[in-house]
Amino acid sequence: MKRDIHICEVGPRDGLQNAKHLMPSEAKKRWISALAAAGIEEIEVGSFVPPKLIPAMADTAEIVAHARTIAGLRVVALAPNLKGMQRALEAGAHKITFPVSASRAHSLSNVRMTPEQMIDEVRKCIALRDSLPAGQRPELEGAVSTAFGCTLQGEVPEDEVLRIAVQLAEAGCDCVALADTVGYANPAQVRRLFARARQALGDRLEGAHFHNTRGLGLANALAAFEEGITHFDSSMGGLGGCPFAPGASGNVITEDLVFMFESMGRSTGVDFDKLLGARTILTQAIPDEPVYGHTPQAGLPKNFRRAA
Amino acid sequence: MKRDIHICEVGPRDGLQNAKHLMPSEAKKRWISALAAAGIEEIEVGSFVPPKLIPAMADTAEIVAHARTIAGLRVVALAPNLKGMQRALEAGAHKITFPVSASRAHSLSNVRMTPEQMIDEVRKCIALRDSLPAGQRPELEGAVSTAFGCTLQGEVPEDEVLRIAVQLAEAGCDCVALADTVGYANPAQVRRLFARARQALGDRLEGAHFHNTRGLGLANALAAFEEGITHFDSSMGGLGGCPFAPGASGNVITEDLVFMFESMGRSTGVDFDKLLGARTILTQAIPDEPVYGHTPQAGLPKNFRRAA
Repeated sequence: MKRDIHICEVGPRDGLQNAKHLMPSEAKKRWISALAAAGIEEIEVGSFVPPKLIPAMADTAEIVAHARTIAGLRVVALAPNLKGMQRALEAGAHKITFPVSASRAHSLSNVRMTPEQMIDEVRKCIALRDSLPAGQRPELEGAVSTAFGCTLQGEVPEDEVLRIAVQLAEAGCDCVALADTVGYANPAQVRRLFARARQALGDRLEGAHFHNTRGLGLANALAAFEEGITHFDSSMGGLGGCPFAPGASGNVITEDLVFMFESMGRSTGVDFDKLLGARTILTQAIPDEPVYGHTPQAGLPKNFRRAA
Repeated sequence: MKRDIHICEVGPRDGLQNAKHLMPSEAKKRWISALAAAGIEEIEVGSFVPPKLIPAMADTAEIVAHARTIAGLRVVALAPNLKGMQRALEAGAHKITFPVSASRAHSLSNVRMTPEQMIDEVRKCIALRDSLPAGQRPELEGAVSTAFGCTLQGEVPEDEVLRIAVQLAEAGCDCVALADTVGYANPAQVRRLFARARQALGDRLEGAHFHNTRGLGLANALAAFEEGITHFDSSMGGLGGCPFAPGASGNVITEDLVFMFESMGRSTGVDFDKLLGARTILTQAIPDEPVYGHTPQAGLPKNFRRAA
């Protein structure tokens, strides 16, 4: 299927990692299968963090194994360090995303390493990946987090973001994404930074990861799209929230993102009705977790036509 | 004060008209005064509809009289017919907005007149306005409603929208706005239709009125801005909801719209903290009415700077 827009559903990782309620492994598997059946081509199914730190991600290897059985689905996992990369490679993820914070304060607070130390870690990860036989090497994405601002240090200089992005590409990452980890981005900044990143990275620049903390998620996605970005992370129901913004949804909401692009005539490959079916599995599995989404509440417009 | 973006707060009209709870007149006045004190330059304070039909608007003449005492504020009222126009002129509104639906089905259902009959009504309204002495003639805005689709007839042909818009300008409206009355618009359609309207209307094209029914309010505002639109209607707290979308917010949320443009470096003239003060008056006056807004919940980013 030809798609104009490529959506990576990050709810099972970014969403559940930040949710208050644990989703049982069997429900995760049903949810992921339903998302894939709705036409979602790529799902970030979990994170290889220490299970003691984040119990919600303790079953990631089992979830990756299940997701790998779904025909046509690209299975993504997050690895925050070399140990996580080893586990992700063993589990057989098709794509592994490795976050490096452009904010020194956030990096030190989050992983007790400077951005430079994290770039060194990425180099080791790539060497490990490249030690595998040719047909078994997953794609490695370098994700620049806090690329649009940071709740600890406030401003994150654009030059610093671009420096990290270029270092990730030079280290050997197959693709690079920019992430608005804390929901600070605005559309003017998005256009400016993605345009500069395109100049610096060319085709290695791929994904955009926005949060909806201040309601600008779709506007930022639109701005990135107009700068040529066609790969977007999003989360069903805006799942996960944000510890800094009680009541505000977390990631860009998959359902509304699909509606926006489809109504613009840009195909996402996603069937909206089937997507609502996957949403039902989510809300039944963790019924007390707040979920968001305007289009699921309002329904599709009477004149809606799915993009060809 | 120089402003890049001109916001017309429509909460007291579009919001309260669709709210489940009545706001007492004294609270309306306090709220409007607080909105003006926050830097809102234009407020649609009410509608001259028959009080029996919409009791929430029964005090509009009294509210207009109060709003006229606020220095620097442009006081807007809606008139749906010649009778309403007479009352709006008597009350002394600075600007009167007259909606004409581009959807024949919506127009017949809503006002029992065809769009053509409504254009005739506009001509009579303008003749009445022009019979006033030169210094006492308010501005008259023609607003094309259901310009992006209709819950009754679905598609509204763009040629039909442009035809109505041109007829409003030719009838003598000082400015013309396009309104997404039911929250069907998408950014691609917004760019296309506003570009065509600019060609057809030149400087008479002024405002954009979006709803957030499917979460695309800010993305649509961004798209219109990129087509040169700088006048936006919005509603505090996304007030009003939409009968077709329970739980979904109604108009574009003023607080988030202000945050978006200010963070893009585009001045709105609005002080965000004072705006939150006005929000408190609103939520205390009708505490059981749902209000929305991401930025009020999350707070401004640490690196936020108000546009110069």
